[in-house]
Amino acid sequence: MPENEHPISKYKLLEKYAQFIDNKNDATKNAPCLASTIFTEHIDFDLTYFPLKHLGYKAIVATMTDILAKNGTPAQVRVALALSNRFSEEAIDELMSGIVFCCSKFNIALVGLDFKTSAIGLIIATSMIGNIDENQQINNKNAKENELICVTGDLGSAYAGLILLEREKQVFQADPTQQPDFIGVDYLLERYLKPEPPFVRAFHEMPIQPTSMLNLTNGLASGLLQLCNASKLGCTIFEEKLPIDILTFDKLKELNIVATTIALNGGEDYELLFTIKQEDYDKVKEIKEISVIGYMTSESSGKHIITNDNKQFELKAQGF
Amino acid sequence: MPENEHPISKYKLLEKYAQFIDNKNDATKNAPCLASTIFTEHIDFDLTYFPLKHLGYKAIVATMTDILAKNGTPAQVRVALALSNRFSEEAIDELMSGIVFCCSKFNIALVGLDFKTSAIGLIIATSMIGNIDENQQINNKNAKENELICVTGDLGSAYAGLILLEREKQVFQADPTQQPDFIGVDYLLERYLKPEPPFVRAFHEMPIQPTSMLNLTNGLASGLLQLCNASKLGCTIFEEKLPIDILTFDKLKELNIVATTIALNGGEDYELLFTIKQEDYDKVKEIKEISVIGYMTSESSGKHIITNDNKQFELKAQGF
Repeated sequence: MPENEHPISKYKLLEKYAQFIDNKNDATKNAPCLASTIFTEHIDFDLTYFPLKHLGYKAIVATMTDILAKNGTPAQVRVALALSNRFSEEAIDELMSGIVFCCSKFNIALVGLDFKTSAIGLIIATSMIGNIDENQQINNKNAKENELICVTGDLGSAYAGLILLEREKQVFQADPTQQPDFIGVDYLLERYLKPEPPFVRAFHEMPIQPTSMLNLTNGLASGLLQLCNASKLGCTIFEEKLPIDILTFDKLKELNIVATTIALNGGEDYELLFTIKQEDYDKVKEIKEISVIGYMTSESSGKHIITNDNKQFELKAQGF
Repeated sequence: MPENEHPISKYKLLEKYAQFIDNKNDATKNAPCLASTIFTEHIDFDLTYFPLKHLGYKAIVATMTDILAKNGTPAQVRVALALSNRFSEEAIDELMSGIVFCCSKFNIALVGLDFKTSAIGLIIATSMIGNIDENQQINNKNAKENELICVTGDLGSAYAGLILLEREKQVFQADPTQQPDFIGVDYLLERYLKPEPPFVRAFHEMPIQPTSMLNLTNGLASGLLQLCNASKLGCTIFEEKLPIDILTFDKLKELNIVATTIALNGGEDYELLFTIKQEDYDKVKEIKEISVIGYMTSESSGKHIITNDNKQFELKAQGF
């Protein structure tokens, strides 16, 4: 028997949340796609400033984004929570309320829940089924040379929000009488603490069809290198084309941080990176939530960013 | 950035194991069902005696059993591993080999993998899609009064195996020159370290149709109480009918442990508990891997076990 068993009975929790479980299993007859995430305390989040309700919401959004990146429609989700005995029932309620709210908002059936004991902290594991027509599935390896590289939304704001939260945590630890200085940075905090899924719910409802796609969990540079490696191509992107929110840019400048670095390597954006054929450029430029940031090249041309002062740098990301 | 980042690059691991990923997404057009598990080190397994290859195998079997309990056919699985920097690449290889072997053996497409950093130890999270015809889905709440209660396989051997492993670990820690005494208990160890899925691959290929079903991860008593609560019924089972392996019975007796207690409350069996209509008794009694252990009663009759000396005890399980 686990030594660190959670004091609240698993069955009590299952019974309590049974109202949220959809037993209908009414997914459509389309071939499903599968996505999952694990969020681990001390690695993926810090509960000293992360509200549990937002965390539940974010875990669902993160999983949805993986389904959207395959051009699927999120349909069903199962959530397993591993909890140490530090978590009160009220804390679990908060977490669950964010999960349930997000599922309800995006019409995703919560089809199962599980509660386990964890050795340390909180672990949130999600499993999601998305519906997708077989001929509309998109993966990350079918990009072609000269195709245009696009991203949804803006990049770097979430990580900038994390930087601010970590900084204020240190200030508070040094002097607990200090109040956090979060004036005018709501957008940055919200991008980190309560991200929304990329605006593109499903490309099959839109006049363009990406040729390849993936989500930007770990930053643009990492996403581009994955895409290039999978498609055996190179790429060139332009610093001036990167969609960086003006408030994020200014706030980072105030902290002596280059916004481009954060947009490339910060991560946590939950936006989509995708490629389109050149002839779709006119369609895409009409959509304000999509930015064209560069184009695919041959593998031997390498993977580069052209900076605002017209210098070329090789794209790098942790783990490559 | 996580402080405890794993030294082996996630992308290196993803590339390395790409050969095992099935991108076809060729699930059938049937409505899918979804299952998931989290296995957490220090809670669900102890790597001092659990071979990583077996652990990978067991994580898949555990998830399959949940799909089988819904009368589904396991089709696709995604696995996410969170690793602390204690794990070498060879260790991850071992774990992956068990996962891949099990998927291949049971014809399950491994459709995705993810590697993350963990704050402590190893976490294995699985997400599985099973195919199921809408009208053949079985849940745990449609049992009726007087229906017969059945289980697959035998009960308690896995937990008996765990008891032996824990005991030998203590002997070894007290005196590292001692060799473990595992003569003649292979079956018990295998039931714990490398369980097989319940023999019943899918009831729709069999002449009987359960009226309700669930898997026995947490022991027979817990499963029965779940089933009774979900169906708003009571139950009576008979000690003499419990399928306990003779070797397990003898070994537990040698250790002064009552086998019935372990069968009821040990858990880790990965067998199915289900109910059938009385008229199906003749069909079921021909199947040697299925045991009829009792019958459902009205809710007000309570939940009981009748012992071999004809005494009646209330069924109890942790968490209820």
